[in-house]
Amino acid sequence: MRIVSGMRPTGKLHIGNLLGALENWVKLQDNENENFFFVADWHMLTTGYEDTSKLKENTETLVREFLASGIDPKKSVVFVQSNVKEHAELHLLLSMIVQLGRLERIPTYKEQLRELKERNISTLGFLAYPVLQAADILAYNADGVPVGEDQAFHLEITREIAHKFNSLYGEVFKEPKTLLSRVPKLLGTDGRKMSKSYGNVINIDTNEKELKNMIMPMKTDPARMRRTDPGTPEKCNVWAYHKAFGTPQEKLDEIHRGCTSAKIGCVDCKKILIKSMKEKLEPIWVKIDELKAHPQIVKDVISEGNKKARTVAGETLQKVREAMNLY
Amino acid sequence: MRIVSGMRPTGKLHIGNLLGALENWVKLQDNENENFFFVADWHMLTTGYEDTSKLKENTETLVREFLASGIDPKKSVVFVQSNVKEHAELHLLLSMIVQLGRLERIPTYKEQLRELKERNISTLGFLAYPVLQAADILAYNADGVPVGEDQAFHLEITREIAHKFNSLYGEVFKEPKTLLSRVPKLLGTDGRKMSKSYGNVINIDTNEKELKNMIMPMKTDPARMRRTDPGTPEKCNVWAYHKAFGTPQEKLDEIHRGCTSAKIGCVDCKKILIKSMKEKLEPIWVKIDELKAHPQIVKDVISEGNKKARTVAGETLQKVREAMNLY
Repeated sequence: MRIVSGMRPTGKLHIGNLLGALENWVKLQDNENENFFFVADWHMLTTGYEDTSKLKENTETLVREFLASGIDPKKSVVFVQSNVKEHAELHLLLSMIVQLGRLERIPTYKEQLRELKERNISTLGFLAYPVLQAADILAYNADGVPVGEDQAFHLEITREIAHKFNSLYGEVFKEPKTLLSRVPKLLGTDGRKMSKSYGNVINIDTNEKELKNMIMPMKTDPARMRRTDPGTPEKCNVWAYHKAFGTPQEKLDEIHRGCTSAKIGCVDCKKILIKSMKEKLEPIWVKIDELKAHPQIVKDVISEGNKKARTVAGETLQKVREAMNLY
Repeated sequence: MRIVSGMRPTGKLHIGNLLGALENWVKLQDNENENFFFVADWHMLTTGYEDTSKLKENTETLVREFLASGIDPKKSVVFVQSNVKEHAELHLLLSMIVQLGRLERIPTYKEQLRELKERNISTLGFLAYPVLQAADILAYNADGVPVGEDQAFHLEITREIAHKFNSLYGEVFKEPKTLLSRVPKLLGTDGRKMSKSYGNVINIDTNEKELKNMIMPMKTDPARMRRTDPGTPEKCNVWAYHKAFGTPQEKLDEIHRGCTSAKIGCVDCKKILIKSMKEKLEPIWVKIDELKAHPQIVKDVISEGNKKARTVAGETLQKVREAMNLY
C-alpha cells in the first residue's frame, strides 16, 4: 500500500505529534508499505505567511525529529513539499475543477478563520488548502492516508476531487482510503487543548529536568484536594499520560488501586510517569543529539527523498497532463 | 524594457486579436524590448476545463498564428505557460498573501460568473485567475504588460501583489507598468460584440472567398435604406473596418464623399474593404500555409522558447524562495 502524509514545520515536535501521528507512521513503515512522509512547508504558509523567518530552520528540525522518532529513510521517502514542484502544478490543475462553495462549506474553514483572526488568513491560499492537500496525496496516487479524526473530512474532499477528475478526463487517480489513527487525544499539561501558545506542551526534544518541571505541577483529579482524599484516575490527566506513555499494566493497576484508596499520592504517581516518559523519549533525545552533531545526514536524507518523490510525482503529473490534453 | 503577454488557446485567432493585440506585440518586439509571449493554456482551463479535447491542437495553432502574424522567435520568447512550472509555483506562493475579498470585488468577476453560468465556473481556479496572471507577469519581473482597457484592473492587482510581497519579504518584484493599447474596438460583422458563438468573427486564416462571404452581407448605416440615400460613414461598421484595416487615406476620403453624397454604393465600398483586408491578411495566409507544411518549426519554436522562459522564471523563483526563507 502506498501511504502519504505530511506535517507542518512550525517548530519542534511535541508529544501529541509523536503519539498522535509519528508513532503511527513508524508502524506503517514496518508493514511493507511504500511511504512518503513530507515537511508541509507550503501548508505552513497558508496560516503562517506573515512570519517565515524560521521556516528553513524548522524544516530541518522537523526532518531531524522525524528520523529521531523512528522514521527510517531506507523504508520511507522523506522530503520537503516545496522542493517537489509537481505539488504546485497539480494544485493549480485541480483548482480548475473544485467548486468554491465546496471549500467554503468545510466545517473547520469558518471556525479556523475565527480562531486565527489576528493572522489575516482570509486569503486565497487558506481557502485553497484542502486542494493543496489533495494534490499532495494524488501526486503519489496514494492508497491510504493516515489522519487524525479531525482531518478525515479533508480526505473526503480529496476523494471527491479524484472522482471528478477521473470522470472529466479519464481514470488517473485512485480514491485514497482514510487510515484513521485511533489515538486518544492527549491534553496539555494544564488540562486544556495542547497548544504552543498555552505553554502546556512537552516537546519531544525536552530533557529530564524540563520534563520534571512540566509534569510535577500538572493538575490531577480536582476532587482529590488532600493527599488523604481518594482520587478517580479516569478524571485525572496524569492517568491519561500514564496510559499514553505505556506505563506497564502492573504499574497501572497498582496506581489505580493506590489512587482510589488514597494509598499513593500524586507526587509519587507523577514520578512513575516521568520514568515512563523518559523511557520513551530518551532514545529520541540521544538520536536528536547525534543528528545535530552530524547535520549533513538530515540534508542528505532530504535531498535523496526529494529526488525519489519527484520521480513518482513526475510520473503521475505526466498522466495528468496527457489526460487533460495539455501540450 | 521587459514585456510579458499571453493569449488563450481557444481556437483560431480572429481579426480582433490581430488588430487589438498581436499587431501591438509585433511593434513592441521591434523596439529593443525583451519580449515573452505565451500560450495561456492554464488560463484557458479557468473557464474551459470541461472540454479540453482541442487544447493541444489549439496550442500549436496559436503559436503558428503568432508566427504568421509577425512574432519573430529571434526577437521574442514564444512559449507555452503549462510547460514552465514556475508559473504554478509562484501562483501558489502568491495565493498565500492575496485576500479573498480583493478577488471577489474585481468588477468582471461576478459579471463573468453570470455570463458564463452554463459552464460551471464557480471554481477556485476561476476565482484565482488574476493571481495566476500576476504570477505570469512577476515570474519574469516584467517592466510592462500590453493590455486592452478591459484588462487594466488585473494589472492593478498584479502591482498590489508585487507590493505586498515586497513589503512582507523584501524587494523582489518590480511593479509592472500598463502598456495600454489604444486600438478602437472592432465589432463583429453583424454589428454585435465580436464572439465566436455569434458567428460574426473573421478568423485570420480565412481565405478570399470566405472573406467575401463575411463582408458582403455586413450591415451598413441603417439610415441608408436605398442605394440613392446618402449615408453616414461614422454610423457604419464597414467604415470602422476600413479604418482598422488601413484603407489608404485618399481612398477613405473618396469613400466618405461618395457615401455621404450617395455616389458610391455599399457593395462597391465593401469591395474596396475586401481589397484592404486581403492586403493585410494575405501574407498571413501564406505564412500559415508554410508553417502547416513544416510543422516541426512550431514545435521547435515552442521548445526553444520554453527553455528560455524557464531560465528567466527559474532565476526569479530562486529569489522568491530565498526571500520567503523556503528550504
